[in-house]
Amino acid sequence: MKREHKEQINAAIEAVKEMKNINHIYFVACGGSMALMMPAQYILDCECEIPATVYTANEFVYRVPKALGPDSVLISCSMRGQTPETVEATRLAREKGALTISMSNSVGSPLWETTAYPIHYDWLDEQDMRNHNHTILHALVFGMLNVLQPNEKYERACQAIDKMDEIFKANIEKYALQGKEFGEAYKREKVIYTMASGGSYGPAYAFAICLLMEMQWIHSNAIHAGEYFHGPFEITDYDVPFIVVKGIDQSRFLDERAHAFCKKYSDKIIVIDAADFDMKDMDEDLKGYFASIVVGVVLRGYASALAEFRGHPLTVRRYMWKMEY
Amino acid sequence: MKREHKEQINAAIEAVKEMKNINHIYFVACGGSMALMMPAQYILDCECEIPATVYTANEFVYRVPKALGPDSVLISCSMRGQTPETVEATRLAREKGALTISMSNSVGSPLWETTAYPIHYDWLDEQDMRNHNHTILHALVFGMLNVLQPNEKYERACQAIDKMDEIFKANIEKYALQGKEFGEAYKREKVIYTMASGGSYGPAYAFAICLLMEMQWIHSNAIHAGEYFHGPFEITDYDVPFIVVKGIDQSRFLDERAHAFCKKYSDKIIVIDAADFDMKDMDEDLKGYFASIVVGVVLRGYASALAEFRGHPLTVRRYMWKMEY
Repeated sequence: MKREHKEQINAAIEAVKEMKNINHIYFVACGGSMALMMPAQYILDCECEIPATVYTANEFVYRVPKALGPDSVLISCSMRGQTPETVEATRLAREKGALTISMSNSVGSPLWETTAYPIHYDWLDEQDMRNHNHTILHALVFGMLNVLQPNEKYERACQAIDKMDEIFKANIEKYALQGKEFGEAYKREKVIYTMASGGSYGPAYAFAICLLMEMQWIHSNAIHAGEYFHGPFEITDYDVPFIVVKGIDQSRFLDERAHAFCKKYSDKIIVIDAADFDMKDMDEDLKGYFASIVVGVVLRGYASALAEFRGHPLTVRRYMWKMEY
Repeated sequence: MKREHKEQINAAIEAVKEMKNINHIYFVACGGSMALMMPAQYILDCECEIPATVYTANEFVYRVPKALGPDSVLISCSMRGQTPETVEATRLAREKGALTISMSNSVGSPLWETTAYPIHYDWLDEQDMRNHNHTILHALVFGMLNVLQPNEKYERACQAIDKMDEIFKANIEKYALQGKEFGEAYKREKVIYTMASGGSYGPAYAFAICLLMEMQWIHSNAIHAGEYFHGPFEITDYDVPFIVVKGIDQSRFLDERAHAFCKKYSDKIIVIDAADFDMKDMDEDLKGYFASIVVGVVLRGYASALAEFRGHPLTVRRYMWKMEY
């Protein structure tokens, strides 16, 4: 990880350390940036008694959660740092006295200028994936945990960040062929569902709403694997495609159960099983938390392949950034 | 409301009152029962500093939130009281020392026997809708608020419960014709999206996953109106149907903005605007919270009409209750 990123993360963690009694940690962003925060919220929910909630930014701005105040931490994120709702949520939180930490690819952007603790991240143009948003956020969250409730596990987690470039790349390569096969086989589909649970729900949500709906104009819905049996499974039929993500965190059983059912009734099941990931020598008790961000990177490869076979580049938009909305 | 319901609700509220320091309120259920809890969680989020979170039951069971313990309250719900995940979540919470309150249509069911404070509710066979699940839950939540932070507003809310039968029925009648027009016009659609925010997101989610996917085998996704502009809106086209719910709570602006956009690019927009509801003489500061449960009742009428025009009764299932899963 670059020194500037480390320094910015450390400054934010030091500020968290000085807070006496955190009442709530708010993860606030929109779309793909919001999805990015779900695996981080999952880690806190499993490891820490401080409540942590993910909000889409405008819901946060208009709802104004009652607990938001000087004892709160807000973590926000916007790639370009210009998402008005996210900037406004950060401004609101700061006005209410909360500690604001914000991640952006754009130094000097409105979000950067609004927040107390900005953290820069690189994006696709940067080779070392430890500098990308998901890994930066994991570094922030494990670093926060380690000052809130110091533990050798979190120290190991902070060190494990260093392995992530190698791990991401190993899995991008490992899944390249499967991604192409997916792209070719599913290029004519009008609807593709995704399904996941636990820390992997975020990447499955991002794939559904950003990669499929936004960038490919394919109907989708990220079904929570636990909810599948309480409504959505009735949509299952031989010709209905599902991308089933099987995580390796505490919630894995939910994914296994959903997969076992849907593969009996649909001939179009694509499985991304984190148990097959090359996680190098990552410690067993940390693997699940890191695998959830590998899921997102692997899925992005599937989207790129799909885009290529459909002749519909991931960069094409009909509304976004083209008009007022 | 029936005396037995009132007594059961009061017993639960008294137990909450005796708790010294509530660290978290967990709303736990599956599918439609989980969706039911979202408007209640919204009320707490806006009115109260105690964190309140909605979980699908099996995610709760496998994740085991770290904060779950003797200072926690769990509110669970299952119509038949037999949903294994919800029963297990309630058992787990009770084992961890949490106060457990559970709603069910079935006295003596596994959920009823597992929980500390069971509350019965009636269902479609009961004429007085104040005894139905949504109203019972609102009575519980406002009653809890009134012991946690006594306020004349919550006293008025508790009294307003009495008006709900009349309000539900007035709006069922008011929307009967529009429901039929919807059913006839949309009976051939393969995909119908719903969209909402704030307290109305729950009913929109229930309509998408239970009414459309489960009971009509129509593809769907409940898009959060705030998320719409950060991905999903790119799926909008002249022939893509959206049911847009416009609530009258704090989040209304999100719905208005989403509606203003999607009606420009789709010819198939169905609007349920809570501002048009007949809310009788409900106080202005309470209307929004109660309108969100009226949304669900109005939407159910739309589903019934759709089912009739499609010749596909809402009771038909291919998997649910018919096999092991």
